[in-house]
Amino acid sequence: MVRIAVDAFGGDNAPLEIIKGAALAVQELGVTVVLTGDKQTIERVSKENNISLEHIEIVHAPVVMPVDEEPTKLLKGYKDSSMYVAFDLVTSGNCDAFVSAGSTGAVAVGATFIAKRIKGVKRTAIGCVIPHEKGCYMLADAGANVECRPEMLRQFAIIGSVYMNKVLGIEKPRVAVVNIGTEDCKGGELQIETNRLLKETNLNFIGNIEARDLPLGGCDVAVCDGFTGNVILKLTEGMGKLMKNELKGMFLKSFTTKLGALCVGGQLKEFKKRFDYKEHGGAMLIGSKRPVIKAHGSSDARALKNAIKQAKLCHESHIIATIEAELSKLSELEKQAELTRSEMAPE
Amino acid sequence: MVRIAVDAFGGDNAPLEIIKGAALAVQELGVTVVLTGDKQTIERVSKENNISLEHIEIVHAPVVMPVDEEPTKLLKGYKDSSMYVAFDLVTSGNCDAFVSAGSTGAVAVGATFIAKRIKGVKRTAIGCVIPHEKGCYMLADAGANVECRPEMLRQFAIIGSVYMNKVLGIEKPRVAVVNIGTEDCKGGELQIETNRLLKETNLNFIGNIEARDLPLGGCDVAVCDGFTGNVILKLTEGMGKLMKNELKGMFLKSFTTKLGALCVGGQLKEFKKRFDYKEHGGAMLIGSKRPVIKAHGSSDARALKNAIKQAKLCHESHIIATIEAELSKLSELEKQAELTRSEMAPE
Repeated sequence: MVRIAVDAFGGDNAPLEIIKGAALAVQELGVTVVLTGDKQTIERVSKENNISLEHIEIVHAPVVMPVDEEPTKLLKGYKDSSMYVAFDLVTSGNCDAFVSAGSTGAVAVGATFIAKRIKGVKRTAIGCVIPHEKGCYMLADAGANVECRPEMLRQFAIIGSVYMNKVLGIEKPRVAVVNIGTEDCKGGELQIETNRLLKETNLNFIGNIEARDLPLGGCDVAVCDGFTGNVILKLTEGMGKLMKNELKGMFLKSFTTKLGALCVGGQLKEFKKRFDYKEHGGAMLIGSKRPVIKAHGSSDARALKNAIKQAKLCHESHIIATIEAELSKLSELEKQAELTRSEMAPE
Repeated sequence: MVRIAVDAFGGDNAPLEIIKGAALAVQELGVTVVLTGDKQTIERVSKENNISLEHIEIVHAPVVMPVDEEPTKLLKGYKDSSMYVAFDLVTSGNCDAFVSAGSTGAVAVGATFIAKRIKGVKRTAIGCVIPHEKGCYMLADAGANVECRPEMLRQFAIIGSVYMNKVLGIEKPRVAVVNIGTEDCKGGELQIETNRLLKETNLNFIGNIEARDLPLGGCDVAVCDGFTGNVILKLTEGMGKLMKNELKGMFLKSFTTKLGALCVGGQLKEFKKRFDYKEHGGAMLIGSKRPVIKAHGSSDARALKNAIKQAKLCHESHIIATIEAELSKLSELEKQAELTRSEMAPE
């Protein structure tokens, strides 16, 4: 049975919603969940809320790392925290994947220095799955690295492509570079050079994409630096919130508009569901040697359950092994290119 | 009477929608419009479509600069183009403001090198007015400069603030730096240093803003580099398009949902209008010595008319004079600071 380590004290609604989400996951997904955190509290909260702890194990961790703590502190001051202990469980092989709704920065640090990076990966990144008109796309980096080099974006593209293929079943994921125009010459050095590098890979690279086409389903994997990615992620959220507020205001205006809401009720629900982050699990820490999923900070039980589902799919589809194979192919190609260059160089 | 120079051959729907927009502006705003472009064509199209040319003057310009031409070519190869001639009219003082729906790059070049920059302005930028939940905000730079320095962002903040105050009547525009977190330490060098510089101004500076809060009305002026700004502008457009498509799909699903559409019809229209770029005029070229408005490339008559309205407001509110005064105050302050520094330096 797949074993998922879940930080019971990460996120705005911990531990109650996390425990509920774990119980849901056990029921619906047939996994074992290992909750980390204060054992007594977890047991008390479960009892008080009538949550069954069947197929849920608890590994005691007395400390909670505050969400506004400096992320790197995880490694030194918080070895007995719920997040660190959960990372330890996947690193040692006791669990198959990691889930936390805690601080993104701390999860990135843990994915890099506790779970460790895949050979050849320079920096881990946040790969966020975002809904679009026809499905969803992976945005990487969605915020871990303010500045990035072209080689990093190439790795994000390869890893994101494997994820969309293995986990979401898209046959040849269309990879694009986020840019301010579609022509190859557009953007800064990062975009121009990344474009050049991606053309040399065997990915289904479709060139640059303008931000306008992201919500319309223009690509399956969008790569950019973490600053741009974070702006895209948060603006998408903000626009979603705006639309929700506007629809609410529209339908609650009068008796007639309320009648209108009744008429489109089912459609409205379906629409909301499609664009609800809670349905889409969390973000994947790209480049980590273990499946590490960062759930949304304000996750409720359902969102947490979906993050666990995502972690399970990552494990079952062996994406880490595939990523390792793809990256080692890339480094082989680079070595050969290097060799050719040195052979061709004048003595 | 205010005289607006309008490039009759800029944009996807030129010249018909531009001429229509000019006629609308004459009727509704009481301005004189000077159309630039091929005189015979303008006269023929007007006649064929029964558009009155009262209070519309035509200045002949035989050439149209293609939208995909290298923008700087405007200065050399296209001196007899509709765009160049329109710039000439405002530079010489024949007209009070400039409007074109043509290539953004070319308009930026013209604003910089034909209309010229305000003293002390290093780079012109695109200041785009974008609707949010409670009104609208100015985003600058929305795409002219891929890379920016902190001093440039400070100028955008000052100019954007004057615009929102003088043209849109916001008393103390809230200025913010687009960033990936609200804390002062977040982001890269550009954000951290801009934040420091803006604290020293007399602007109503509210610190960093995350992209999530832009559509929710978190600030009145948002400054960032042109790459980030262009991503924000285009993603906002794309999300708007997505929502429009989704609503359409939702309401057209069945007889019942169509009934629902009837019930909320008025609300739906109002909502669409509020978020329609055509209602908000165009973008202002920040830093130009003359009011230069870039209308949306796909402008129809109404959008063009609103861009003319914006140009008229810029002229009537004397924003250029105010901007000049604010920038010269800033340079005074900087000189004094420089003096203090050199006096305090050890000999």
